[in-house]
Amino acid sequence: MNKLLFTVITLSSILSFSQTDEEVFRTIYTQSLTNGKSYEWLNHLSNQIGSRLSGSLGAEKAVAYTKEELDKLGLDKVWLQPVMVPKWVRGAKEFAFIESEPGKTTNVNICALGGSVATPALGIKANVVEVKNFEELEKLGKENIEGKIVFYNRPMQPDLIHTFEAYGGCVNQRYQGAVEATKYGAVGVIVRSMNLRLDDLPHTGAMTYEDLPVEKRIPSAAISTNDAELLSTMLTLNNNIQFYFKQSCKQLADVQSYNVIGQITGSEFPNEFMLVGGHLDSWDLGDGSHDDGAGVVQSMDVLRLLKESGIKPKRSIRVVLFMNEENGLRGGRKYAEVAKQKDENHVFALESDSGGFTPRGFSFDCNDASFNQVLSWQPLFKPYLIHYFEKGGSGADIGPLKSETTVLAGLRPDSQRYFDHHHASNDIFDAINKRELELGAATMTALVYLFDKYGVNPISSSETIKN
Amino acid sequence: MNKLLFTVITLSSILSFSQTDEEVFRTIYTQSLTNGKSYEWLNHLSNQIGSRLSGSLGAEKAVAYTKEELDKLGLDKVWLQPVMVPKWVRGAKEFAFIESEPGKTTNVNICALGGSVATPALGIKANVVEVKNFEELEKLGKENIEGKIVFYNRPMQPDLIHTFEAYGGCVNQRYQGAVEATKYGAVGVIVRSMNLRLDDLPHTGAMTYEDLPVEKRIPSAAISTNDAELLSTMLTLNNNIQFYFKQSCKQLADVQSYNVIGQITGSEFPNEFMLVGGHLDSWDLGDGSHDDGAGVVQSMDVLRLLKESGIKPKRSIRVVLFMNEENGLRGGRKYAEVAKQKDENHVFALESDSGGFTPRGFSFDCNDASFNQVLSWQPLFKPYLIHYFEKGGSGADIGPLKSETTVLAGLRPDSQRYFDHHHASNDIFDAINKRELELGAATMTALVYLFDKYGVNPISSSETIKN
Repeated sequence: MNKLLFTVITLSSILSFSQTDEEVFRTIYTQSLTNGKSYEWLNHLSNQIGSRLSGSLGAEKAVAYTKEELDKLGLDKVWLQPVMVPKWVRGAKEFAFIESEPGKTTNVNICALGGSVATPALGIKANVVEVKNFEELEKLGKENIEGKIVFYNRPMQPDLIHTFEAYGGCVNQRYQGAVEATKYGAVGVIVRSMNLRLDDLPHTGAMTYEDLPVEKRIPSAAISTNDAELLSTMLTLNNNIQFYFKQSCKQLADVQSYNVIGQITGSEFPNEFMLVGGHLDSWDLGDGSHDDGAGVVQSMDVLRLLKESGIKPKRSIRVVLFMNEENGLRGGRKYAEVAKQKDENHVFALESDSGGFTPRGFSFDCNDASFNQVLSWQPLFKPYLIHYFEKGGSGADIGPLKSETTVLAGLRPDSQRYFDHHHASNDIFDAINKRELELGAATMTALVYLFDKYGVNPISSSETIKN
Repeated sequence: MNKLLFTVITLSSILSFSQTDEEVFRTIYTQSLTNGKSYEWLNHLSNQIGSRLSGSLGAEKAVAYTKEELDKLGLDKVWLQPVMVPKWVRGAKEFAFIESEPGKTTNVNICALGGSVATPALGIKANVVEVKNFEELEKLGKENIEGKIVFYNRPMQPDLIHTFEAYGGCVNQRYQGAVEATKYGAVGVIVRSMNLRLDDLPHTGAMTYEDLPVEKRIPSAAISTNDAELLSTMLTLNNNIQFYFKQSCKQLADVQSYNVIGQITGSEFPNEFMLVGGHLDSWDLGDGSHDDGAGVVQSMDVLRLLKESGIKPKRSIRVVLFMNEENGLRGGRKYAEVAKQKDENHVFALESDSGGFTPRGFSFDCNDASFNQVLSWQPLFKPYLIHYFEKGGSGADIGPLKSETTVLAGLRPDSQRYFDHHHASNDIFDAINKRELELGAATMTALVYLFDKYGVNPISSSETIKN
C-alpha cells in the first residue's frame, strides 16, 4: 500500500469514528435514498420470481437468488440453514356462485384458505348460515348448522387506527373457523376476507384443522368483501339460497427448504448477535411484495447500508430471511432451535413484516431498561419523521428468540393501506413506493447502528452506555 | 315538542357538554371512519366531474356540485363569492421527439406548462442546451444559447425527507425557466418534471412570463423524468441532436368564477371566524384527486363531522373552497380582500393542500403563544398517530389572511408518494385510500374543535384558556 493511500484510509477511519450520531443517521438515510438496493432486489423477487409459497418453485428460486445477492455483498459469512416445510398447493382456480333459485346464479370471488382441503371434484352446494362470531355459532347449534355452509361475516373494525388491531379482532374467523363450524356439522366454511376496503379480491391466509381427523376436515375459502356484502344481503332477502363452491387445493408431504443467512462478524463482541430479518415465503395470489418481499430486501440492505456508511459493527450483525412464516413458522422455529443448540447470544432482533409503506417507528418487546434506552434516542429519529416507539409485539419469525434480556423489535410502517393488499392478488410490486421502502431500510439500519454502538440492555450489557 | 323528547334532548346536550377532549376526539375519528362523506364526495368530484382548471367547464360544475352538497348539510349559510379567474387551455395533445440524426427520431412525453404560449403551428425544432440551474445558463451566455431550446434538468433531491422541500429546490426551473432562458435568446424551454420517480408521465404546473411582451414569450413544456434522462444521455453522446415539440395551448380572457363558502355561525363569538379549506380548481391532466380534491372534501367534512359529533362551535366555522390556486391564486386573494373590507376577524385558518395521504400532523404559521398552545395538545393526537407539530408554512390560499395573531395551519399528510402524482395524469381517484382521506378529515376536525373550545392565541383571545 502506498503511503498516500494509507494516510487517506487512516484519516477516513478517524473521521468516520468521530462522526456524531446525527451525522451517521444522515449518511445512512442518504445512502438508502440515493444508493439503496432494496427496490432493485424487490423488483427481481416480485417480477422475475413472483410468489413464494413454502415448498414452491418460487420459494426455491428466492432462496437461491437472495443467497447469491448476499454473496455479492462481501459479508463475512453467508449460508443456508436447512428446514423442512409444509407444501400446500392451490390447484385450479376456485369457482363459486350464489344460487338464489334453481338456475339463477351469481358468480362470486373466492379463494381457498391456506391449508384447506379441496371440495369434492364436483364442488359443494348447500344452504348458508351467516354468523358474526363463534358465540352466534354456538347459539344456533347443530340443528341450524348441520349440512350447511357457515359464512363468517364479521368485518374488520374500521374505527381502529391501528389496522393490525382490526385484523387481530377478526382473524380467528379465518384461522379457527373450520374447527368451530365442524363441531356443529357444517359442510364448508366461507370467510369474509380480512380487508378494510370493499372490493372484489378474496384474501387468503392460514387456517387450522387442529387434530381433526382427515375425514372430518371441511373445505374453507375466503370471499371478497363486496361478495360478502352481497351474500349477506341476499340471505336477508331469502335465507334459503344456496352457495356453491369448488376448490382443488391439496396438502402434500413436507419438503426441504432453507432460511438464508448472512453475517458481518462483530469487531469487539463477535459472540453477541444482532438479527434483522423478514420472511422469504409469501402467499401465492400476488407476488408478496408487501408481505414480505419488502421486509426481506430491507433486511438485506441493512447490512449493505452499514458497510456503505462506513460503519464497522462491534457486534455480529445477521440478516435472516426466514422460510415459511405464512403457514407454519418452521423457519423461525428452526433458527431459534439452532441458536439455542449453539448457545448463541442473541441480544437484539428486528423484523420487518408489516409492509413496505412509509416507516413510522418500531414496537418493542423488551425490558424497561432497553425500552428507556430507545426512548432516549427519539430526537435522533425525529428529522426522519420516525416518531412511533411503543411497547408491543415484534415479529412472528423472531418471536421464538424471546428472552428476558433480548430486545425484540418490529418495524412499524404506516398501516392504512396494508390490508388492501395483504394475502391478495394485488400484493404486487406496483403497490410499492421506492422511497417508502428505502426509508424503511434506513430506519432499520439506524436502530441497528445505535444498539450496536451503545449496547443492548445496559443492565446486563458488556459495556456501559455513553450518553 | 313532547316532554319526553325535550328531556332526551336536554340530557344529550348535557352529556355532550361534559365529554372530555379524549371522548370528543374518539367520536370525531369514529364518525369520519365509519360515517365519513369525504370519499363519496371525492368520487363524484373526480369521476363524475373530473379535472377542474380555472375557467373550465369542470371548474364550473365543481362550484355547482360542492355548493349543492354544502346546501344539504344544514349549515347556517352557504354562498358563492364571485372572483374573476384566468382561463388557459391546453388544446390538442402535445407532441415531441428527439432527432439524433435526420430522419432518426424518438418520441418523448411532454406537456405544456400552465400559462405557456403555443409553438408555431408546425412546431419548433432546435438544438438543445442542458443546464441544471440559472447560474449555468448565465455562464453559457447568449453565444451558446441563442436559437436553441434550453433543457432544465435539475432533479428533485432524493435524500430530503420532506418531499416538499425537494420540490421547493427545483420548481424555479419550471416557474422562472422561460424568463431566464429568454434573456439569452432561447427559442423554447423543456423542464424535467417535478417528480421523484423515474416514469413516463410529464407533470404540468404554473410558469410565468413576468412582464415579457407577447412576442418575446417562448413555449415551455415539461418532459417526463424517464425522457429527461434519455435526452440527457443522448446529449452526452452527441450535443448536436435536435428536439422537436409542438403544442397549441392558449391564454384566453379572464372569466367569472367563484369561491364556494359554507358557515356554521358561532354560538358565543359569531364574529370570530375559523376557516378550513382547500382549492377547488385542479390541473387538467388527471382529475385532481390529491391536488386538491382531497383538501376540498376533507374541509367540507370538517363542518359535517362537527355537527355529527354533536359539537356546537362557539366561533363561526367556515369552509372555503378556493378557486384558482394553481394558476393565479385569485380565489385566495379575493377572499382575504373581502374579509378585510368587511372587517371580519379571522382568528384561525387551516388548509389541506398536500394530498389525501395518511395525516402526520400540521405545520403552523403563528405566534409562539399559539404554537405552545398547540404543543400542549399533542397527547390528545397521539393515539391517532398524529405527531408532527412544527412551525412552517400553511397553505397558499390562506396565506393572504396572515396577521400577527391569526393562526395559519396546513395539514401535513405523508408526502412520500405525493410528487408521483402531482400535476400529472395519474393524479386520479384510484390513488386515494379511503381511510387515509378520512383520517385527514378527522384530524382537521379535531384541531378545529380544540381551537374553537379553548380560543386562539391566549394573549389576545376574548377568553382565557382552561387547561
